[in-house]
Amino acid sequence: MREGKVLPGGVIKVGSFLNHMIDTQLAAEIGREFARIFGSDGITKILTIEASGIAYAVLTGVELGVPVVFAKKAVGRNTSGDNAFCCCVHSFTKDVDATVSVGCDYLKPDDRVLIIDDFLAMGEAVFGLADLVRQSGATLVGAGILIEKAFQAGGTRLREAGIRVESLARISSTEGGVIAFS
Amino acid sequence: MREGKVLPGGVIKVGSFLNHMIDTQLAAEIGREFARIFGSDGITKILTIEASGIAYAVLTGVELGVPVVFAKKAVGRNTSGDNAFCCCVHSFTKDVDATVSVGCDYLKPDDRVLIIDDFLAMGEAVFGLADLVRQSGATLVGAGILIEKAFQAGGTRLREAGIRVESLARISSTEGGVIAFS
Repeated sequence: MREGKVLPGGVIKVGSFLNHMIDTQLAAEIGREFARIFGSDGITKILTIEASGIAYAVLTGVELGVPVVFAKKAVGRNTSGDNAFCCCVHSFTKDVDATVSVGCDYLKPDDRVLIIDDFLAMGEAVFGLADLVRQSGATLVGAGILIEKAFQAGGTRLREAGIRVESLARISSTEGGVIAFS
Repeated sequence: MREGKVLPGGVIKVGSFLNHMIDTQLAAEIGREFARIFGSDGITKILTIEASGIAYAVLTGVELGVPVVFAKKAVGRNTSGDNAFCCCVHSFTKDVDATVSVGCDYLKPDDRVLIIDDFLAMGEAVFGLADLVRQSGATLVGAGILIEKAFQAGGTRLREAGIRVESLARISSTEGGVIAFS
């Protein structure tokens, strides 16, 4: 509430501690909390999307003792020749479509996957990552989210699609530039 | 040596444990090692560049108890209105130029900054990050690198420019598709 800033269009800026500068002690605590929530679910791999989910995915992975895979938004020369699971993800914040991919070697049918991401708004990123999991034949256990914008449709859409979503903070409104939690 | 693959043009693919899938126990060990190397240098902030440096920067930051700032390669709506330090970084791997920026709020003249990145080849990324530090008036303490390609010019150029570079692994050659360390 003290550090978050509301920008036009319901965009919430938390760059000072969450996704441009990272408060590493808070981040470590977040990793421990996700590990507590999903610790008995037999997770074998954590999946996130570059870039701002990586810190939280990795700290959760350290706690759970499992590797982290991050889906890439662009294909550079050093992924050429690889087979990859791909999907298209729309970012409402940036108003762009991105092709998101994970090398086929990194998600296997016997994996039990936890998705970690910083924000949940319309749910596009999580739906995209869930589709990569589906393509691989792995099992999606659920999604751990730092901040859910409960005033946008993503959380409802994901839960109606049968995806378990655990959010550490739920924001019910940014009206008048005031961040209200639910 | 077992997992790394050599691609044409001296590109080394370590996606299976370092920068697409991340071995989190190795990553935590890397964070502890950088904290050991730079632990007495009064670091106040760690700077990296999205995306693949973030995991290692954050784990080093957890150990040193300091925040991590990551320079962004693209400007989305949620950074609009911010003042930012900017520079241009060329990626030889991807053969693209990227504008890289850090919000002016996140680097201050009294900061002592450690740069962390996964690869050092031609040194473009570290030179770019060093320039952001210079713009801010902060002090650059040094750069911690996971893998230095010692057969490319970056390490020499950075050290000749007076930048302290500490690499955890130095690769002297990839000739014949064989990774040789020095």
